[in-house]
Parts: sequence; structure tokens; C-alpha cells
Amino acid sequence: MTAAYTALAARFRRLALLGEANGVLQWDMAAVMPEGGAAIRGEQLAELKEIAHETLTAPEIADLLAAAAAETAALAPWQQANLGEMRRAWRHASALPADLVAALSRSVSDCEMRWRAARAANDFAGLRPGLQRVLDLTIEAARIKAQAFGCDPYDALLDEYEPGARAAEIDGLFAELAGFLPDMIGAILAHQAQMPPPLPLPGPFPAAQQRALAEELMRAIGFDFAHGRLDTSHHPFCGGVPEDIRITTRWDEADFTRGLMGVLHETGHAMYERGLPAARRLQPAGAARGMTLHESQSLLIEMQACRSREFVAFLAPRAAAAFARSGPAWSADNLHRHYTRVARGLIRVDADEATYPCHVILRFRLERALIAGDLALADLPGAWAEAMRDLVGIVPPDDRDGCLQDIHWPGGAWGYFPTYTLGALAAAQLFETAVAAVPAIPAALLQGDFAPLLGWLRPHVHARGSEASTDAILRAATGRGLGVEAFRRHLTRRYLAA
Amino acid sequence: MTAAYTALAARFRRLALLGEANGVLQWDMAAVMPEGGAAIRGEQLAELKEIAHETLTAPEIADLLAAAAAETAALAPWQQANLGEMRRAWRHASALPADLVAALSRSVSDCEMRWRAARAANDFAGLRPGLQRVLDLTIEAARIKAQAFGCDPYDALLDEYEPGARAAEIDGLFAELAGFLPDMIGAILAHQAQMPPPLPLPGPFPAAQQRALAEELMRAIGFDFAHGRLDTSHHPFCGGVPEDIRITTRWDEADFTRGLMGVLHETGHAMYERGLPAARRLQPAGAARGMTLHESQSLLIEMQACRSREFVAFLAPRAAAAFARSGPAWSADNLHRHYTRVARGLIRVDADEATYPCHVILRFRLERALIAGDLALADLPGAWAEAMRDLVGIVPPDDRDGCLQDIHWPGGAWGYFPTYTLGALAAAQLFETAVAAVPAIPAALLQGDFAPLLGWLRPHVHARGSEASTDAILRAATGRGLGVEAFRRHLTRRYLAA
Repeated sequence: MTAAYTALAARFRRLALLGEANGVLQWDMAAVMPEGGAAIRGEQLAELKEIAHETLTAPEIADLLAAAAAETAALAPWQQANLGEMRRAWRHASALPADLVAALSRSVSDCEMRWRAARAANDFAGLRPGLQRVLDLTIEAARIKAQAFGCDPYDALLDEYEPGARAAEIDGLFAELAGFLPDMIGAILAHQAQMPPPLPLPGPFPAAQQRALAEELMRAIGFDFAHGRLDTSHHPFCGGVPEDIRITTRWDEADFTRGLMGVLHETGHAMYERGLPAARRLQPAGAARGMTLHESQSLLIEMQACRSREFVAFLAPRAAAAFARSGPAWSADNLHRHYTRVARGLIRVDADEATYPCHVILRFRLERALIAGDLALADLPGAWAEAMRDLVGIVPPDDRDGCLQDIHWPGGAWGYFPTYTLGALAAAQLFETAVAAVPAIPAALLQGDFAPLLGWLRPHVHARGSEASTDAILRAATGRGLGVEAFRRHLTRRYLAA
Repeated sequence: MTAAYTALAARFRRLALLGEANGVLQWDMAAVMPEGGAAIRGEQLAELKEIAHETLTAPEIADLLAAAAAETAALAPWQQANLGEMRRAWRHASALPADLVAALSRSVSDCEMRWRAARAANDFAGLRPGLQRVLDLTIEAARIKAQAFGCDPYDALLDEYEPGARAAEIDGLFAELAGFLPDMIGAILAHQAQMPPPLPLPGPFPAAQQRALAEELMRAIGFDFAHGRLDTSHHPFCGGVPEDIRITTRWDEADFTRGLMGVLHETGHAMYERGLPAARRLQPAGAARGMTLHESQSLLIEMQACRSREFVAFLAPRAAAAFARSGPAWSADNLHRHYTRVARGLIRVDADEATYPCHVILRFRLERALIAGDLALADLPGAWAEAMRDLVGIVPPDDRDGCLQDIHWPGGAWGYFPTYTLGALAAAQLFETAVAAVPAIPAALLQGDFAPLLGWLRPHVHARGSEASTDAILRAATGRGLGVEAFRRHLTRRYLAA
């Protein structure tokens, strides 16, 4: 180690702890804060962010990064990777002038608020001026970063969520998906139409019973309640830190299936955080790699493991017992039909795993065109409808269930959408490799035993933190770069072979 | 305003927000954090404190304070007071060398841990080396501050909790109390012995029913659940910020009386915080004045208002309804006997309002002697027993229920104890003045209506924040400085006149 590296490690440790304090304040705001605390909480969060920004962009950091870069031979490989992650964080923070950051932040706050009203009123025209302002400032920021990083503007946006990602590569993967998914969805629907529809699972399902069942299953996956909590919030999420993971969910007393799977999805995120390398705690190289691998871990647990025939067979009698129900609707077969139902729908967050990528491909293509200036906001509703017809096979009757449905663009999260589907592809590829390497995994899931699966995931994904790129981690784990074939095989097996 | 003052206000706004973030983390730790999060939470808290310390002791602050002090004519009176509070915070933070602060912090962490074991084992000898280390470092810090502030060492410690307090003045008040309390306690006990003992209130009292009753009474006092919460923690406290107050308590299912009154005590703290001047939010002059006035507000609500005959008459039928009980034990008279029971006891935190000051006077006298070097730690148990006999009239059979009972000294809080009794005196004096000014107060309490009382407290205490000294606020509110007479009249009225 060098003096410059040691000094940087101390500064980034502070940044990590500031980020964690911020996370506690955000969890509190979502899970327990009374409504009257909102305004001052905004001030508290903004101040912590400003302190972090000042810490990261202080002139000494640039000097230390330069000094440390000249002495990398004295660093262990993981420390070199750590230095690279420090540089990445620094260049994102220091690339933009402060007035642009402030203008973007204000425009996003304003546009998010307008979006809530505009969506409720199906008023895209009313949202347009505010959204145009966010888009213009995002393009300005993307161009400045692109210049500084030597990449395309859209790639500069992607890099915030998925370091090193390139739109050209994503475009190739998404073209492959778009090449087979629409037909496959048609085939799945035809196959499904020949089978009996799922028997209904009528409620009510008291929240306390849903929670007890969810906790039982979280424990089965390996969630340790001495190191985490399950609470309720309007938008489910997984927050907290590796030693203290905070999952939130919502309970719908009319339908337990979706909330339950949502908890298991967040538990996948939790297991990743919990499995990060403790020895590199509070350093960038010890953090989760990016949104693709994070989403791969939640989707691997939810889609690959928990919606499998094996796990649903474990789940069905426990669900029946939790709600004191019985009968054919509570068979593993029937519950599995519920959990593998495919339908053409308008809303991304309600989509099944087969149609979900189509929603994402649509957004990726449209946001790239908007950022590149190839699509005007005025033409977005039409472009949306056209892409929905081509990819999902239905057309939204209005903008509320069309281009107004997501908060991402009003919220300034451009370049985020593709990571959902990159995560789904990675989940399929990792799970397929894990099962090939540890053939006992499916039989263990039948017993609700996740140890064999996690025993493989921990060294191959979780414990690697950010010591290598997403691509390098995936190649080391699965022997190849990210592709669509494992995902295609998964869909075929689950939806067309049964 | 001047440029220097404006710059200082921005820095102290940051300090206030950092302190509030710290408060959220501490509430979370006490109320909801899983045990596995303790170690990293300690790191998060320490880092926020270090950032605050660096912010407050940065060289620019000294320069700005000097510049602002030269231009006070340009400041409004409250801004001048604000500047004084800034200077007070700065001189406490900058007086001590960093290595002494670090050594004190480590010795306190160590001694608190040893104290838990030593108290359980009744092992004062085992605690002595660690406590000596804390005491030695505290004396060193007190002497350095005394030199810098131009005051006695013990006064420098007092100033952290009660700005401007002087031991010589406290000594006078406590001598008056010690002059009449031991005899008065004897008279109260004799008077009490002539009355029928309270009828027992046998449990169990389910926690959910206790909570519902507590919330009903909190609402009566004026607590707004859109701006606060009630949760459980091992040690009850009132945290949070004026817009989002976090009260915690414990529920004892065998006895509801103590937990309920504990909640009302914390609600008194909460009403003070909630009533602080919003226009001076995040500035030192807008904060609570000190521990004396803070404790005066909790004791005013608990001891003066909620243990009054009037309020207990409002409470009794509601308590009976909350627990679905009836009969003579649930009469207002009987509940009032429970809530005004006096007894010679060994434990400060269990003491009634008549004997409590004796416990505090004992600690004040002993800690002054320890800080002055007039008492050796080895002689503490003997001095404790002697003072207990003189002041409370009983002698502890061991150190566990003697000098080992409080965490304050192992925890480094020297100079804190007197504020409990200064608060009790201030509570009696303020309540007496309020009732004289607004004679409708007692009749309103009979209806559970706190509006007349709070209508007087808000302008006279709460809204003044730290714009003047405790003494100035008390003189403006009651027409005189802090004295023992109102407290004496209160005890006489409640315990000897009935």
C-alpha cells in the first residue's frame, strides 16, 4: 500500500458511511416516518449528499488519485480494482459543473411531482414541458460526461447503473430477444390456452398471516433476522447494509401471491448484499457490482428458484397451512400455474418474466432515441404504441397505461431500464451453470433448502463484490459472456415443454 | 446581517442537520435495529460525529466568529444570541486536544461496558480502575476548559448540559432543599401512614391496551401523530426533531402506572421540542435551552399536571375502560394515591418527587468532591452510604443499589445530575406562575384539556428557544430567578395538606 492509497481508502470509507447513514434515513422515511417529517427529512438527506459530494470532489482526491495511480505496483490486485472504482466514482461526481447538478436535481424534483398528477389525469401534454427540461439537462450532462470519459452520451448514463456497459452490446442482446420473444409469447399463450386455467385462490389473507409465511420462507432462503428486518412501505425495496438488511413490502389482503414473491425477490437482493466480501467492507471494491448483477440475484431467487416446480411444491402446503386453507386450489400444480401465468399486459411492473423483456427493450430503444435527439417528446406516445404492438402485441388505450406509467424518466433515471433485462439474462445463465455444477440444487429446493444454491452463488458472485467487471465475474462464473440462450432455454423449459 | 454571520449560519445549519441525522440513527438503533447491526452502526455514528467535529473546529469557524463578533451592531438581538451560542459550541469543541477527546471516548466506552458487569456482580473494586481513568481524563478536560473559559473546572462540565450554570448557585439551592426535605419526607410518611394504603391494581395489562391508553392521553396533551411516533425501547427517551418527534417507552404488563406516566413525561419533552421557534430552526438560538428547561417541561407535564388530582380524575375512568376493569381500585382517589406514593428508596430512577432531589443532591456533592480531588474513588461507597443516611434516611446494603446504580459517571456524564432537580424546581415555579396567570388551567386538566397550560408555556418557554439564558427565560416567565419555594409549596399542598 502507498500513502496516497491509504489516504484515499480513508476518504472512501467516510463516503461509504455517509451513504449508509443516508440509507437509514431513506428507509426510515419509507417505512416509519410520520408524514409531517417529510420536509425536514429532505433537508437532512440533501445535506448528507452535499457533504458526500464535497468530500468526493475535494481537490485532494484528484491529487491522491493521481499519486496512487503512479504507484499501483505496490497494490494488491483487489486494491488496484478498488482504486479503479474510486476513480469511477470520482469522475462521475467531478465531471459535471455544480450548477448543472443543482438544475438537474431541481428539475427532477419538480417533474416527479408533476408526473404523479399527470399520470392520474392521463395528461402527457401537461407533463411534457417538465419532462423536456429533465431530458435537456440529462442530455447536457450525458454529453459532458461522454466528452470526459471518451464514450457515447447514452453509455455515460448507463455507466451510473451498470459500470462499463455499452449500448451497442445491449442492442445486440436485445435484438436477439426481440427476434424470438414475440413469437415465443404467442406460442406460450397458445400452449397455456390448452391447459385448464388456474383455480382461483380467494382471499382474504390477513397481513399477519402473510408476514408469518414470508418470514418462514425468508429464513429458508437464509435471511438472518439478527441481521435484518421485514417492514411495509408503499414501494417495496431492499435497503440497509450487509449487517442490517432492510426489506420492505406491501400486503394485499385479497391476493397473497404477488406480495409473497415480491418479498422473495427482495430477499435475493438481500442475500447478495449479505454475501459481499466482509474484508473489503466500506471500500468501493467491496460493494455490489452494479444493477445487472444485483437484479440477477433477485431474479435468480424469485424467477429461477422460487417459481420452480420444486420450490412451489415446498411452498404450497406451507401457504395452505399459513392461511388455514385446503382443497385442489392449494395443490402445488395449481399454485405453480398461478406463478407461471403469461399474459400480454400494458404495465411493466405487472408483467410476467416472458413479456417483461419486451417492455424493457421498448424503453431502452425509446430512451436511446430521445437522448440521441432522434425522437421528439411530442412523438413519444405514438412511438410507444407502435413498439408495444410490435413487441408485446397490444396497444395502450391511453398514455396513463402507456408512456406515463414509469417514474424513471421524470425521476432522471435514464439508462436504468436495460439493467432489469440484463439481470434476467444473467439470472438464467448463472442458475443454469449452478445447477450443472451442483446437480443437487433442484432436489434441495423441493425441501426448501437453499444452501446448495447459495453455496455456489457466494463464491462465484456475492463474495466478488466489485473486484472485477460484471463481464469478468460472469465469465469466471459461467464460462462465457452474457447471452440470451440460457434465458431462452429457461422459458422454453418452463412454458413450452410442460 | 454580515457576511461572516451568514457564513456561520450556513455552517451551523449543516451541524444541526448532521446532528439530526445522527439522531435518526440513534433512534433506529434503540427502537428497531436488529442486534447484528450494532457494530457498523457504531462506525456510522462515529463518522458523522467526526464530520461534525471537523466542521465545527475548522479554522475558518474561528475566523468567522472573530469577524462576526466585530460587527454585532448589524445583527438583530436573536442573531446576537445565536452568535453567542455558536461561540459556546465552538469553544467546547475546540478547547480540548484531539488526543484527549479520543482517550476520553475510549475510556468511556470501556468503562460503560465494565460497569454493566460490575453492577451485576456488585463489584465496585472491579470498576474502580476504569472509573478512575474516566475521572482522571474528565478532570483533565475540565481543567483545560476552565482555563479557557475562565471558570471553575466543575462549572466547565456543568456548562455542557446547562449553559451558564454555576455550582456555587446550585449549592445554595440544594442547601435549602437539604435543609427542609429530610424532615418533610418524615412528615409526609407519617401523614401517609394515617391514610388507607392504595388498593392494588392487579394486572395483567396487555401492551396493546397500554399503548392505546397512552396514545389517547398523548393526544389530549397535544401530541400530533402526524409529527411523531411512539415506539418501544429498553431505555425510554424522547428523540427526533420538532417536525418528527420519536418517543419510546417500555410496557410492563404487570403494572401500567409507571410506563404510562413515563410516556407522559416524554410527551412533556416532546411538547417543548415541538414548540421551539420554527423561524430559527436549524440555528443554535432555535434549539432547546438546556437540560434544566428540558427537564422542567417533562416534569411539569408529568409531576405538576398529570399527577394532579384534576388530571388523575380525568385519567381514572379512561384507564378503567382501556383495561375493561371496574371497582373501587379504579377510582380517581385510589389511582391518585398510587401516583403520589412517597417512600424512602435506594434507587434514584424509582424515586418519587419528594425523595428524588435527595438522590440528586447526594450525587452533585459527591461528583463535585471527586472532580475537585477532595474525595478519592476508594472512599466513594462510604461517602455514598453516609449521604444516603443523612438525605434519604436509609443506607444501601451493597454498592449495586448504591454507588453502582447509575451509568452517568462511567458514561462520562459529570455535571449532568443537578439538572434533574433544577428542572423539578423550574417545573414547580413555572406551573405555579401559569396557574396564577391562567386560573382555568386546573379545571381544564379535569377535562383532559391541556390547551390553556400549553397556551401559557409556548410563548413563555418553548418559543424562546435559546434566545436568552435559562435564568433570563425563567425571570421573564415567573418574575424571579430559580428558587425552591414553589417546589416546597407544591410538595406541601400535594402531600401534607390533603
